[in-house]
Amino acid sequence: MIETDIIIIGAGPVGLFTVFEAGLLKLKCHLIDSLPQPGGQLTEIYPKKPIYDIPGYPTVDAGELVDNLMEQIAPFKPEFTLGESAVSIDEVEDNKFVVTTNKGTKHKAPIVMVAGGLGVFEPRKPPVENLEKYEDKGVEYIIKDPEFYRGKSVVVAGGGDSALDWSIYLIENKIAKELSLVHRRNSFRGHLDSVQKVMDLADAGKINLITEAEVIGIDGDDALKSVTIKHNKQGEFKKEADHFVPLFGLKPTLGPIADWGLEIEKNAIVVDTVDYSTNRPGIYAIGDVNTYTGKLKLILCGFHEGTIAVQSAFARIHPDKKNVLKYTTVNGVNGF
Amino acid sequence: MIETDIIIIGAGPVGLFTVFEAGLLKLKCHLIDSLPQPGGQLTEIYPKKPIYDIPGYPTVDAGELVDNLMEQIAPFKPEFTLGESAVSIDEVEDNKFVVTTNKGTKHKAPIVMVAGGLGVFEPRKPPVENLEKYEDKGVEYIIKDPEFYRGKSVVVAGGGDSALDWSIYLIENKIAKELSLVHRRNSFRGHLDSVQKVMDLADAGKINLITEAEVIGIDGDDALKSVTIKHNKQGEFKKEADHFVPLFGLKPTLGPIADWGLEIEKNAIVVDTVDYSTNRPGIYAIGDVNTYTGKLKLILCGFHEGTIAVQSAFARIHPDKKNVLKYTTVNGVNGF
Ligand SMILES: Cc1cc2nc3c(=O)[nH]c(=O)nc-3n(C[C@H](O)[C@H](O)[C@H](O)COP(=O)(O)OP(=O)(O)OC[C@H]3O[C@@H](n4cnc5c(N)ncnc54)[C@H](O)[C@@H]3O)c2cc1C
Ligand SMILES: Cc1cc2nc3c(=O)[nH]c(=O)nc-3n(C[C@H](O)[C@H](O)[C@H](O)COP(=O)(O)OP(=O)(O)OC[C@H]3O[C@@H](n4cnc5c(N)ncnc54)[C@H](O)[C@@H]3O)c2cc1C
Repeated sequence: MIETDIIIIGAGPVGLFTVFEAGLLKLKCHLIDSLPQPGGQLTEIYPKKPIYDIPGYPTVDAGELVDNLMEQIAPFKPEFTLGESAVSIDEVEDNKFVVTTNKGTKHKAPIVMVAGGLGVFEPRKPPVENLEKYEDKGVEYIIKDPEFYRGKSVVVAGGGDSALDWSIYLIENKIAKELSLVHRRNSFRGHLDSVQKVMDLADAGKINLITEAEVIGIDGDDALKSVTIKHNKQGEFKKEADHFVPLFGLKPTLGPIADWGLEIEKNAIVVDTVDYSTNRPGIYAIGDVNTYTGKLKLILCGFHEGTIAVQSAFARIHPDKKNVLKYTTVNGVNGF
Repeated sequence: MIETDIIIIGAGPVGLFTVFEAGLLKLKCHLIDSLPQPGGQLTEIYPKKPIYDIPGYPTVDAGELVDNLMEQIAPFKPEFTLGESAVSIDEVEDNKFVVTTNKGTKHKAPIVMVAGGLGVFEPRKPPVENLEKYEDKGVEYIIKDPEFYRGKSVVVAGGGDSALDWSIYLIENKIAKELSLVHRRNSFRGHLDSVQKVMDLADAGKINLITEAEVIGIDGDDALKSVTIKHNKQGEFKKEADHFVPLFGLKPTLGPIADWGLEIEKNAIVVDTVDYSTNRPGIYAIGDVNTYTGKLKLILCGFHEGTIAVQSAFARIHPDKKNVLKYTTVNGVNGF
């Protein structure tokens, strides 16, 4: 059982900065995120894109902002449970909560802050019959370990960076025996470099590039054996395959957050703006995951919400202590 | 008459950033500040000190933060009335307000945002009898134009950077005929370099350094003629002087803000956190100047407040238009 002062569900920018504000009040935080890395939407969706409305930054790349936040909170030594989704929040003795993940990891604390953004990221699935039946039996939506594909014939589908980059990787490193890349259009959304490399590998006969086409069916017995591809001009044809890997990106869904007995409106958790508390005392909701009159889903607003919420958390944890605001300029940052 | 969409009273960090958020909504801002430069407390009180709790900045000097904010808002071409205090807010035709300064400059707009921080900065005055009588007749609290002191005998009082730096300036540039620096203690609060330079000039007989002493009286007829100095050991003595310049720093006082018919509590303006509006429709209060349950006087909170307030201002100015939030990452920053 992991024990801490504040369990933060979601390691997006808002969850991360909250570690800092909690740290100033000498409260320790543990963050849980279903993604394998911190940063939330910024790292997962647009790491290389500039943001212009972070106060004091005329421009900052999303990934750089996350790096800076990680550096800012380092003195307070936050701990992380990454690659696991929080699935339940149970009240136990002493007014504490236990948060359990899909992998069974348990975390205990008097305070839970839900900073879950738009929710857990789940893969976008193509509308192919029997797809679920072959999941983990030849159909995967994320490439976790490329070695898994050694000596196999693989059909990748998609037109973005991950489809391009994994196709290149599996061929250049001589991992896959055979690789087809199927994409609906004739143009790609990925980096120009990656597009060029895929074209070159296709010209060299190393990648089987099938554009203006879609995988419309899959077949097999216990495991996947073939996919059916429909080409705009050539019509339908079958292709033998050990693996079908549709890489159509991840989309967030509120998921387990909706089952925690929290009041939900417009796919978000209703909070009281006095301290961003939810209807369950001791549980707060900050950042994109919450809603209130006038709510704006902006990073800078989440920073404010987390800052206010930890003050209330402090009062809950230390009902007898009075916290007097001290400026960081005057007091410095005294880590743990 | 200066006309704009939003008059912002106070060009501290919060007033400045609000220009950016207003600009995203195509609203123009004009800022008024009684100080001669933008930046509020950051520039006036602690420009060289590091701040640690600006999200995304592990550390940033206050002056640097102001420079960055000025760069961030530049695309929206804010206009400034500096060195003047807003003294009145009058409602005129078409639901507009006219804000008038102590120098009579008039500004007209449908929206006023009070971002006045702790108020107007006023000089700290020493407890000397008849001080007010000689104001502008030999007694000054701020050195605006050093040339004013050419050929004069000047008594400066104070132990901080401005007392040290102006004493050095007036002597090194051969402006004052004679200069005495009177300070209560034997140690200074200013930069070591400046302290060293004053010591050197005193050793060279160029500055008359009188420590452990205070100016306790002033005398003259139409204009100042002399000051009375009380030394810890030497006792009292008179010194001829054309000017007495006590540089004891500036302290903020709510000042005129208290006279605008706004609800005041704890020396701050009461606001509704839904949009940080005051009891006078069309007038908002953001940053250190406002108060509400749970208020924290932090820069990052003011950034949030200004962002939310301009949304409400937009709705007031364009009751018929619906504003849809667009990410800067996606839409960029399109200045005026
Ligand atoms: C393309 C794009 C451009 C944008 N541009 C801007 C911009 O210019 N300015 C701006 O202010 N905002 C912008 N945004 C919005 C901004 O990214 C969000 O406001 C911000 O990410 C919210 O931060 P957060 O920490 O609340 O949530 P998120 O960043 O969404 O992070 C939430 C995290 O919680 C995790 N999580 C959710 N549920 C669980 C669970 N049950 N268990 C474990 N983990 C969970 C998720 O995996 C995720 O990592 C943009 C968004 C996009 C998509
Ligand atoms: C030493 C020190 C250290 C600090 N450290 C931190 C820190 O680490 N982190 C943090 O978040 N905060 C810190 N603060 C607080 C921070 O400086 C304030 O929260 C911030 O300045 C508030 O910004 P503002 O724009 O609301 O107001 P201000 O910065 O106070 O600016 C208000 C402006 O309004 C002007 N004004 C007022 N009335 C009028 C009028 N009638 N007409 C014209 N102009 C007017 C004033 O001249 C002033 O320039 C610190 C403060 C001090 C003094």
